[in-house]
Amino acid sequence: MALYLIGIGLSDEKDISIRGLELVRNSDIVYLENYTSALINCPIERLEKQYGKKIMIAERELVEQSERIVQEASKVNVALLVIGDPLTATTHLDIMMRARKIGIPVKVVHNASILSAVAITGLQPYKFGKTVTIPYPEINFKPEIFYEVLRQNKILGLHTLLLLDLKPKEKRFMTIKEAIGILLEIEARRKQETFTENTLCIGVARLGADDQKIFAGNAKEVSSVDFGKAPFSLIVPGELHFMEEEFLAQYRSPTGKKG
Amino acid sequence: MALYLIGIGLSDEKDISIRGLELVRNSDIVYLENYTSALINCPIERLEKQYGKKIMIAERELVEQSERIVQEASKVNVALLVIGDPLTATTHLDIMMRARKIGIPVKVVHNASILSAVAITGLQPYKFGKTVTIPYPEINFKPEIFYEVLRQNKILGLHTLLLLDLKPKEKRFMTIKEAIGILLEIEARRKQETFTENTLCIGVARLGADDQKIFAGNAKEVSSVDFGKAPFSLIVPGELHFMEEEFLAQYRSPTGKKG
Repeated sequence: MALYLIGIGLSDEKDISIRGLELVRNSDIVYLENYTSALINCPIERLEKQYGKKIMIAERELVEQSERIVQEASKVNVALLVIGDPLTATTHLDIMMRARKIGIPVKVVHNASILSAVAITGLQPYKFGKTVTIPYPEINFKPEIFYEVLRQNKILGLHTLLLLDLKPKEKRFMTIKEAIGILLEIEARRKQETFTENTLCIGVARLGADDQKIFAGNAKEVSSVDFGKAPFSLIVPGELHFMEEEFLAQYRSPTGKKG
Repeated sequence: MALYLIGIGLSDEKDISIRGLELVRNSDIVYLENYTSALINCPIERLEKQYGKKIMIAERELVEQSERIVQEASKVNVALLVIGDPLTATTHLDIMMRARKIGIPVKVVHNASILSAVAITGLQPYKFGKTVTIPYPEINFKPEIFYEVLRQNKILGLHTLLLLDLKPKEKRFMTIKEAIGILLEIEARRKQETFTENTLCIGVARLGADDQKIFAGNAKEVSSVDFGKAPFSLIVPGELHFMEEEFLAQYRSPTGKKG
């Protein structure tokens, strides 16, 4: 018996590694986590066909799931498939720790993550500061922590990757336009010149997929672009090295300028 | 004709993705980049056997190589295999841009990178600040920029991933002990309480491999650990969330404490 935490990459059924595939095929039970992310452009049937295994969606309440998964892994080989790299979400570290505590062997198979895949924009992944998520604002919960993180990163000249909230079960994925709107609203209140309509930013959709879309321009321009299907992220560059600038130019609109 | 930039992951011949493998097998020429990193625990013969292709080492002067590679990709399908994620090194962005400029289709296959794989320590990858490399000091070149980056990250409560210099051609890989020694030497001069013998840090070796080694403790303790074979990295945590602390405890020595 063992627990396998297997990253399946960013886009579709062909992103799994050979090591990951071997472990999936060696598993008695295969779960696909569906609560922290979603592989919305690849139906589960395609994964099942490629992997040669029946896959169950693990979307119920997290703790409940993790207890059940750990219990099962004490009897048979259980694979938990995770989009991106398997350990970037705290939930999976928690499952891993619970399993280890009761002596279940855990194998982790890393895979591509948006944290390094952002390099395709030309921005050096090492020059990113803290990464943060923009959550859907709620009536009594309108956090501004991401604005503060962005402000701090900019002061230090660092790039910022803003992950956008998603509720896969409700098929809700925050769009780049929505994210920009939220940032501009906070800017209008705080007036700290952190994110204005003239701020250079980069919208990315479906990073790592064949039909990925990347567009750089000022916030107003990026906001008006149709990025197609989710998942989406927003990047705000800090100081740009000339090589970063040159590479990024491929994705810029003719009128986009740094703000 | 096309250029494929294919990440082959962190450890061995089984880390390549199915997508990557398909492209390798569709290539007329296959290079393995050997100048920015090294897959020192997996001989090239194992890659060749798994991939079913003859692989050439691309270790000559970078620009020269990239011109040659781009030239070849204008005639046939060329794969450049890169350890980790293919775009984290500027060199590969440069090759990509040169190819695109003359109309050669470029496909990028992302893969695991140390930037997200560090999550196995329990530290949230989103809470890392800027990443920096500790270079081998030379007689007339003793940079301290990594110390400054570490200092800034700590002030902000962020974790720091310190990549250690390597010269694969000379089979030189900076050890964790050497890195700690370099940091302590700068500390002794600058006395900014950024990195002392009591500073909590995490040494990691062969991250992503079955025999990876992770050890957390104060700098003095970590310095005395035998981490075995390269590659190595050093992590200095910033502020720790209790969940990070709890997970990290698995790797700590009984006497290690936060400094």
